[in-house]
Amino acid sequence: MKPFPLNKAFTFLEPGPVVLVTTADGGRYNIMTLSWTMVLDFSPRFAFMTGPWNYSCKALLKTKECVIAIPTVDMSKTVVSIGACSGAEVNKFEKFHLTPLEAKCVDAPLIRECYANIECRVIDYIKKHGIFVLDAMAAWIDEKRKEKRLFHAIGDGRFIADGEKFSHRKIMREKLPEGV
Amino acid sequence: MKPFPLNKAFTFLEPGPVVLVTTADGGRYNIMTLSWTMVLDFSPRFAFMTGPWNYSCKALLKTKECVIAIPTVDMSKTVVSIGACSGAEVNKFEKFHLTPLEAKCVDAPLIRECYANIECRVIDYIKKHGIFVLDAMAAWIDEKRKEKRLFHAIGDGRFIADGEKFSHRKIMREKLPEGV
Repeated sequence: MKPFPLNKAFTFLEPGPVVLVTTADGGRYNIMTLSWTMVLDFSPRFAFMTGPWNYSCKALLKTKECVIAIPTVDMSKTVVSIGACSGAEVNKFEKFHLTPLEAKCVDAPLIRECYANIECRVIDYIKKHGIFVLDAMAAWIDEKRKEKRLFHAIGDGRFIADGEKFSHRKIMREKLPEGV
Repeated sequence: MKPFPLNKAFTFLEPGPVVLVTTADGGRYNIMTLSWTMVLDFSPRFAFMTGPWNYSCKALLKTKECVIAIPTVDMSKTVVSIGACSGAEVNKFEKFHLTPLEAKCVDAPLIRECYANIECRVIDYIKKHGIFVLDAMAAWIDEKRKEKRLFHAIGDGRFIADGEKFSHRKIMREKLPEGV
């Protein structure tokens, strides 16, 4: 994993892909699958929603840290399976043969097999809606992997892989944050 | 536009596409382009982020209503252009040759040219983070249109069209909401 510019880290969340979120609770690693995320600011600041029925919620509230890992379409079966079982019963890194790597700013681990990893600190929790607000502190990318397409949940058990890319940079020029 | 089941309306936002949001402020229609959205609940409940620098923000706070319209990839140039100008200066329906249709539950209009439209009521506003929380009240679909691929912002002026669809319904079966 190579360092990735923090001011561009929002570009991994902006397209709305399915992501993985890792936590470390007293040295115990866990992973959850999440589709309910959004960007809040280019700084970057993110929001995601999860509830107390989710085992990771407790660790997030306790440690106020996590890593948002960005999986690619070749990992979709693993990612969906991670979301279908609970960290209360399973060591997900072991079960799904994923490799935890030490992060720089947080105790939660990076996931070696993912395309990118973003270390985050929880800066607010809106309990009423289950919304976590997070600031990114460091970002990492695996530039060498071949499969770079992310994938998106439809919500009915089906998913969509990234298709063709196209540009409207000229129209958007004045709206883009500096250096992006 | 045909009525679309409300319990499945979240499937238009879940993949994280670029959307349009219409408002009606004293009979004056406006449209904004938005990528910072997420699902909060299957009911469906949504969140999106926009700030007071956005002309639509005032109308949202005043009327507490909007329509989230779902454009397809063939509309991308129009959608990006809508985001590059302000409703303070331009009548966007006229400028971009879009057709407002009367909604059922809100004064904000549906957009005839979009694939789907979701009528929403603002139920909360978290000013500190610029987060609007919305409940959907009615949903509509144009089943006859040929192009149904949505598209996603990367955030650097580039976009990604929906690619191939695939299913993990068997793995997810127990996690799917009823009837979806």
